[in-house]
Amino acid sequence: MATIKDVAKLAGVGLGTASRVINDSGYVSEETKKKVLEAINKLGYVPNETARAFVTQDNKTVALFLPSIHHAFFSELAYYIEDELDKKGYKMILCNSSGQKEKELKYINMLKQNKVSGIIGISYNPIENEINHSMPIVLVDRHIGEIPYVSSDNYGGGKMALQVLKETGCNHVAYMGTYSKTIFTEVEKRLKGFEDAAKENGINYTLYIEEDPIKDQTTFLHTFLNNYKNIDGVFVENDMMALELVQLAQDRKISIPEELSIIGYDGIQTYAMLRPKLSTIRQPVELMGRSLVDLLIKKLNGEQVTPEIHPVQFLKGETTR
Amino acid sequence: MATIKDVAKLAGVGLGTASRVINDSGYVSEETKKKVLEAINKLGYVPNETARAFVTQDNKTVALFLPSIHHAFFSELAYYIEDELDKKGYKMILCNSSGQKEKELKYINMLKQNKVSGIIGISYNPIENEINHSMPIVLVDRHIGEIPYVSSDNYGGGKMALQVLKETGCNHVAYMGTYSKTIFTEVEKRLKGFEDAAKENGINYTLYIEEDPIKDQTTFLHTFLNNYKNIDGVFVENDMMALELVQLAQDRKISIPEELSIIGYDGIQTYAMLRPKLSTIRQPVELMGRSLVDLLIKKLNGEQVTPEIHPVQFLKGETTR
Repeated sequence: MATIKDVAKLAGVGLGTASRVINDSGYVSEETKKKVLEAINKLGYVPNETARAFVTQDNKTVALFLPSIHHAFFSELAYYIEDELDKKGYKMILCNSSGQKEKELKYINMLKQNKVSGIIGISYNPIENEINHSMPIVLVDRHIGEIPYVSSDNYGGGKMALQVLKETGCNHVAYMGTYSKTIFTEVEKRLKGFEDAAKENGINYTLYIEEDPIKDQTTFLHTFLNNYKNIDGVFVENDMMALELVQLAQDRKISIPEELSIIGYDGIQTYAMLRPKLSTIRQPVELMGRSLVDLLIKKLNGEQVTPEIHPVQFLKGETTR
Repeated sequence: MATIKDVAKLAGVGLGTASRVINDSGYVSEETKKKVLEAINKLGYVPNETARAFVTQDNKTVALFLPSIHHAFFSELAYYIEDELDKKGYKMILCNSSGQKEKELKYINMLKQNKVSGIIGISYNPIENEINHSMPIVLVDRHIGEIPYVSSDNYGGGKMALQVLKETGCNHVAYMGTYSKTIFTEVEKRLKGFEDAAKENGINYTLYIEEDPIKDQTTFLHTFLNNYKNIDGVFVENDMMALELVQLAQDRKISIPEELSIIGYDGIQTYAMLRPKLSTIRQPVELMGRSLVDLLIKKLNGEQVTPEIHPVQFLKGETTR
């Protein structure tokens, strides 16, 4: 049985070079690569069992791209993903890759080399051209070609928020959040659902949005409170921003919910103990985490998978009437 | 050059068995193991370069044991550990192992087999007998033999909290938190520092503690508010518990800090926007995360390492006078 040494010898290259070609890692000139591949074919070289074992069995590892572990929704999601992966016999590599496209590319490259089994991507980086639906990748809240994704019913959640504000007597409502010029995420559907429901109900609405990521959230919120004094109901893109808005409004002695109703999105458990208790649209975070793993494993088994959109729920707190 | 097939043939065993002995994974009877090892010696078998590469270079991976990603202090610490590991060329496997000793043992076993490079353990499981100081392991806040650890100055923090309560006019102070019968952690020094400083200052103090993990934190806090109405200053073991105490006290119309001063421990950024802003003893979380990685890498390089205890800082918020 031919060894890598035989391959290197026949190709007239060093062991390291032969290894780089075999493992598709590191730079090798096209000419040298050709020589090594010819030697492999001629000798019928197969990387040995032990090496294969490292690639296939021992490497039951999934990389999780996480934008920021500071955001409690993502940490809760990461928790359930890791728990479900563990139950299925996979390890999870955590990759905090907010704004670091290169970091994600490193793992995408490892995936191509079979060094990780799959990727679960909560990613806001421009990686469209690096991945495709033939790879074992599932995304959260994001559309890239035919790559499967998991999300909560963002559109339905947006409609639900408008409906609640309307039914509790708000007359001048606003959507507060972000937009992206470069990538399309499911999150934008929160705005779309809100907007469509406002139109259907014949309610005037304001969109108060800034490009993601917002540089200074506190200033963004103060500017809103300074300039939109007539607004009596706001649907905020996520709980963290909604909570800060509650605090800043209270500092200005704006009474909540009487003068200003506020609804968040996420339903983060970490914040459940805070007062006033935030009214929010709850994403089923545990279900989403576990179904991400299910989808990925189906994909690894060669099954057809389609996006999964999970229903949301309105949790009434103390920030709506 | 002998291959694993040659080893298996000479030992009269299957390829899988030979591989298990070579990789020290899975069960093989002592007798069979002996046969395989003899064949290895006789043939001068060396696992091939590619296989070695998988074990050594590609496997620059550190496992992080995390008790709960729901606790914002741990997620912040995990964030900095991952960031620093990435800078040093290591991947990080996240292992949420709260109350799951077996999960930690799996990684300790992988460490013994060189399948992970090292372990950073934020662990409250009884793993004393499974690890020792010769292994590349560093711990957070915990003492197990000579294994290096990183912590904040818990003792100094406890003293500092008492000092602040005393200087701001509190006369009946309490320490609120947990204790463990089974493991000794640095966290207990928060209590010790508080207690010693109270004695030095001749101040009466109450210890209000329950065995970790507290089953129902809300009930624990209500019981305190029901039974200790004379107490006017509390130092709480962590920010999360302190924040809930603030909320429950406010629900009872206890004015903070006039009637009750509250100091937390951690200084979590996630909570910085909340009102009333919590007075707290801040752990230098970024520094701690990065120094854990430094210690581990020194250990991997065979250097002598000693525990690192980082100074803390009092952050005045609105819950102390």
